[in-house]
Amino acid sequence: MRSNGPRLLPAREAYRVRQAFTTLLPLAGCRDGRLRAVVADVLDHPGSLARAQLAYGLGVRRGLPAERALKLAVAVEYFHSASLIFDDMPSMDDAAERRGRPCPHVAHGEAAATLGALGLITRAYALLWEAIDRGPLPRRSAAAALVDECLGIAGILDGQARDVHFHRAGTSLQEAAEVAMAKTVPLIRLALVLPALVAGVGPEALNRLERLAEAWGLAYQILDDFKDRLLASEESGKTAGRDAGLGRPNLPDLAGPRPAFDRLEDLLSETRRLLAALAADGGAESWAPLDRLQGFLEAEVQDVAGRLAEREAA
Amino acid sequence: MRSNGPRLLPAREAYRVRQAFTTLLPLAGCRDGRLRAVVADVLDHPGSLARAQLAYGLGVRRGLPAERALKLAVAVEYFHSASLIFDDMPSMDDAAERRGRPCPHVAHGEAAATLGALGLITRAYALLWEAIDRGPLPRRSAAAALVDECLGIAGILDGQARDVHFHRAGTSLQEAAEVAMAKTVPLIRLALVLPALVAGVGPEALNRLERLAEAWGLAYQILDDFKDRLLASEESGKTAGRDAGLGRPNLPDLAGPRPAFDRLEDLLSETRRLLAALAADGGAESWAPLDRLQGFLEAEVQDVAGRLAEREAA
Repeated sequence: MRSNGPRLLPAREAYRVRQAFTTLLPLAGCRDGRLRAVVADVLDHPGSLARAQLAYGLGVRRGLPAERALKLAVAVEYFHSASLIFDDMPSMDDAAERRGRPCPHVAHGEAAATLGALGLITRAYALLWEAIDRGPLPRRSAAAALVDECLGIAGILDGQARDVHFHRAGTSLQEAAEVAMAKTVPLIRLALVLPALVAGVGPEALNRLERLAEAWGLAYQILDDFKDRLLASEESGKTAGRDAGLGRPNLPDLAGPRPAFDRLEDLLSETRRLLAALAADGGAESWAPLDRLQGFLEAEVQDVAGRLAEREAA
Repeated sequence: MRSNGPRLLPAREAYRVRQAFTTLLPLAGCRDGRLRAVVADVLDHPGSLARAQLAYGLGVRRGLPAERALKLAVAVEYFHSASLIFDDMPSMDDAAERRGRPCPHVAHGEAAATLGALGLITRAYALLWEAIDRGPLPRRSAAAALVDECLGIAGILDGQARDVHFHRAGTSLQEAAEVAMAKTVPLIRLALVLPALVAGVGPEALNRLERLAEAWGLAYQILDDFKDRLLASEESGKTAGRDAGLGRPNLPDLAGPRPAFDRLEDLLSETRRLLAALAADGGAESWAPLDRLQGFLEAEVQDVAGRLAEREAA
């Protein structure tokens, strides 16, 4: 597996997304040095910005003005950055590093990390609001409801809670897959469905994007679980082998590596079909960033296949 | 000091606010037992709902439809509830109880408490959105900007960060008062200015409400600091004497009880003048909940005066 994330956009657009990520949360007015340091650290080390690239690329290709697409995209990514800060806290995954750097709670203390994550969330809502606010009322309401569903206690928060508390609740494969989806799908859904919704994409394509988010979400989590098992921490950029130590669900462990790998391939066949249907419907070019993500995931799956074969041969 | 909060509304309206607080965050769809328990605990023990009473009372009296005023009011109170959960965490005030009950992180673990607080915030934004979304665009934008300013890293998060990190930064009285305002004013401002803004109140009255929020915010914090010093924990409902142990700013300690008390009286004279100006401007009845809060705070100040006199005589 490559340690870098996917490049889903042409260089010029990717640069624009990166610039927006770094500048759309003004630090002026924040007097506390540690709080500012947490937020500055996040803004200066954006990671792959996969969700923002998807949201921006999809939004502008479906007719959203660039400024609004950028705000949506950066908002989704700020939510994601905040969720990583919380996930890494001692009360959750108790991770020491992420993306090859010390986690904010390690570098600046838990209080500043908590408040910094909340600052990202606050700003994300402000940006969402600005991006959505220009559309007609029914579309604004649908967008707000989607955000509530994805980010609330029936969405990502429930997924994260079930993940953290998993070892107490049993270890059925079905439940592990459900938890994996509950914690991973909401932000992918937000990155795919929200810009499409705000841009006025029709119900049939929206439905396909919903299914795409679910399948990619589970595939992404299975890949992540393989990484947790197969990679040393220098290569993955985060603390490796944590699932076992924490009693967290790990799908290749629960299902066995081969069945988990087969499930991964099935999921990517399904997403290939969904992408083909979207292309037939709405013009191939307007879904190009999605095709690139599919290509990236397929390459990652090939990489896992190679490592699995090595293991089985050893 | 009375341990119960202020009654700012007639019984029927107060009941309505309480009902809305309890029901506007649906638990359906949340599968994790601990996360649900945190949120249910908050919803079942609303506290005084002072901010929600203010926001609702002001909103409906300035012409906002009751449903929208309720959503605004409950949103402000969910933000407040979330801020209390975070403030009580081990990395911040490390409090064991609040309102006479174990804090969520003590009862259900830090992970569930964190996720529950985030659930309150997510739902608060959804409610704000629904309440604000019906107005004209410039008013919607002004409301969103106010929320961002109050809740972001230049608002309450900065205040809380400076409070937590205070003992490292020195102890000037001026800075202590600034920190007190930075952590207390934003939610009072949201409770007063946001409903007025959404209801279309004019700039002069909005400006008076801004100044009212600042003066009440500081007064409220000085009262709270007096409570921390003068009350046992059974009476205040939260862990008493914490400021000293944590090295947090405490204004009566820094300025001396008498000068702090004088400042308190000055602040309440100022708010009395602001309320009189509002009444002359917009009709006394439409500001009635504000007058009740003023009366409540004046009674609390009398109570502090009595206790101070007892101490000085002893």
